[in-house]
Amino acid sequence: MRILGIDPGTLVMGYGVVDSEGDDLIMVDCGVLSVSSHSSLEGRLRTLYLGLLDVIARYQPLEVAVEEPFVAKNIHSALVIGQAQAVAILAAVNSGLPVFKYTPAWVKQSVTSYGGSEKGQVKEMVRIQLGLSHIPEPSDAADALAVAICHILNHAYLGCLPRAGDGGR
Amino acid sequence: MRILGIDPGTLVMGYGVVDSEGDDLIMVDCGVLSVSSHSSLEGRLRTLYLGLLDVIARYQPLEVAVEEPFVAKNIHSALVIGQAQAVAILAAVNSGLPVFKYTPAWVKQSVTSYGGSEKGQVKEMVRIQLGLSHIPEPSDAADALAVAICHILNHAYLGCLPRAGDGGR
Repeated sequence: MRILGIDPGTLVMGYGVVDSEGDDLIMVDCGVLSVSSHSSLEGRLRTLYLGLLDVIARYQPLEVAVEEPFVAKNIHSALVIGQAQAVAILAAVNSGLPVFKYTPAWVKQSVTSYGGSEKGQVKEMVRIQLGLSHIPEPSDAADALAVAICHILNHAYLGCLPRAGDGGR
Repeated sequence: MRILGIDPGTLVMGYGVVDSEGDDLIMVDCGVLSVSSHSSLEGRLRTLYLGLLDVIARYQPLEVAVEEPFVAKNIHSALVIGQAQAVAILAAVNSGLPVFKYTPAWVKQSVTSYGGSEKGQVKEMVRIQLGLSHIPEPSDAADALAVAICHILNHAYLGCLPRAGDGGR
């Protein structure tokens, strides 16, 4: 069962591809799609959209998990978050894939068993769960892996894990 | 010169197609794409995206003008506006069309010569400029026609009009 996790942004879009095989979580790839802040909004959205289509075509995930904040610092950042979410969601559904959305607090809760965890603790748990020697970089790629792991844990795709109950929404 | 104007929303997406021919503005079509609030976010975004692709394929505009608010009532409405903008922008750029963005105040300024105009005044000017007997309905369709007219006036596609200077952004 291969899951693509996405941490959406309009300048940096983090992605993480994770396989669940039996009791194991295996990192397939992770990274970021980044665009220049000097590009036009329409150019950035198109580049990120095409980049995600390419990631999906390359790794053929079965499902896509997207982080979906409900809070933002201010109106401008909320507009930008909304744009980034729409790009991620359209890339997934236009590739025929089901989309699942998780709040940042639920990702933390699922990955570390505590919704108020620090970001560093989430990344360390990502490292441990994937059996890696180092925390994946850059930061948005590790965050995207956390979203993918959250989805796998919540849907009990790991044989050893109980179903974690209803998800972040 | 055929322009598609879009008034973006995630439940109702208004569109208006306007031709400028010599000194005339001619309404080709207008309407709304609407989706149920009970549908999933991903289902709504995909339906609106495909609907806009269909409008573009049917009317073959040369350029697309999108209303782009910078303010919102609250964080939630800003998230939603961002999502709707991204859908409109991706539908245009993925159809190979250039996108132009205008703030609501600039649309009002361009169509009525006063940025603080009431919404009703804008719609009445849309009716007059297009030589219609009635204000087009529903409201979001008339708003989308205003965005298209704004773009035409700002780019002096009408022979009789001076170039209105820099646009809303």
